[in-house]
Amino acid sequence: MKVNKPYLVGIAGGSGSGKTFFVERLKERIDDDLLIVIPLDDYYKDSSDKPFEEREKQNYDHPDAFDQDILVEQLTAIKNRKSILKPKYDFKTHTRFPDKVDKVESRPVVFLEGILLFAFEQVRELLDLKIFINTPDDIRIIRRIARDTKERGRSLESVIEQYKSSVRPMHRAFVEPTKDFADIIISGEHYSEEVIEMVARQCLKNIIKS
Amino acid sequence: MKVNKPYLVGIAGGSGSGKTFFVERLKERIDDDLLIVIPLDDYYKDSSDKPFEEREKQNYDHPDAFDQDILVEQLTAIKNRKSILKPKYDFKTHTRFPDKVDKVESRPVVFLEGILLFAFEQVRELLDLKIFINTPDDIRIIRRIARDTKERGRSLESVIEQYKSSVRPMHRAFVEPTKDFADIIISGEHYSEEVIEMVARQCLKNIIKS
Repeated sequence: MKVNKPYLVGIAGGSGSGKTFFVERLKERIDDDLLIVIPLDDYYKDSSDKPFEEREKQNYDHPDAFDQDILVEQLTAIKNRKSILKPKYDFKTHTRFPDKVDKVESRPVVFLEGILLFAFEQVRELLDLKIFINTPDDIRIIRRIARDTKERGRSLESVIEQYKSSVRPMHRAFVEPTKDFADIIISGEHYSEEVIEMVARQCLKNIIKS
Repeated sequence: MKVNKPYLVGIAGGSGSGKTFFVERLKERIDDDLLIVIPLDDYYKDSSDKPFEEREKQNYDHPDAFDQDILVEQLTAIKNRKSILKPKYDFKTHTRFPDKVDKVESRPVVFLEGILLFAFEQVRELLDLKIFINTPDDIRIIRRIARDTKERGRSLESVIEQYKSSVRPMHRAFVEPTKDFADIIISGEHYSEEVIEMVARQCLKNIIKS
């Protein structure tokens, strides 16, 4: 009897596209015990050797900001049903928490979620299904403004400034082109229960032993 | 015990996007006895009351060229497990074959395929799953040129002239905007076996009685 590998689903899309909401909807359809969610953001490079001012200025919307080696190594382990010690990233200090790691056990369904997920060829190759959440630019900035001013207490001006100087150009250069790698593109404005059900059904295909 | 209704899948996308190829791939995954394919093109309005010259000049890339009433009536019948007498359209004379109809029995899975499928609200409402095959404009015209010059014996000039004068403007006005109605968008250049399998699996969800 063959032991099935976990089913890895990648969910990408621009800032404010609705990735997290989509993942939440999928989670409603799949038993908690069968599922893990891994955020790409935990794999930002640790820059603790650099002074804080330099870390503040770094471009976090560029693929190079991520530690691709650890990411691929850990995804490969998860795919082979091994547990990992996932890093945790501290957005306040822009460093990896030095003594905090999450022990993550491999489970039959794995969701990987992140803006730049499909920018990494080795990651794409590990994914069984690649979903891009597509949301018009104006809707995405509206959502980002709402989130960053309300939930994160930032000023409207700083959100717009960061969007124009970094988020937007990086989106056009590195996120938008990865749409072509997606197996399916789903609207982040309206998606049907049918799609959630269809994706959840496919995620669970491996739980029947063959 | 509830009797399940057929599962209706709509497959839309521009001329040369790869709709037919996609349907063929899906058909490989689903038993013939469970499946029917209905082309939207069979529902062109019958213009046999008009002279041939006028019929030749009509705009066949516009939603008004279709007989929406019959289409909705017959889809509703199919959805209610009734058989229909489907019209057949003669592209040479631009009329409905007067004494040819296809008796089509309702089956558990129904594929509806056509460029302008999602332009009709009542049709959209009848569909369980709406798939848009998305292919870049340059690839689509290359495919159309190959098909129309080789298989249909038309001159390169006439294909390009028709594309520029009618197909392209109608695509931008009426086909492209319907992408927003799709549940999922799939690339018509490369699609994975995973997507074919996922869609086929979902199509068959109703065959288990509940």
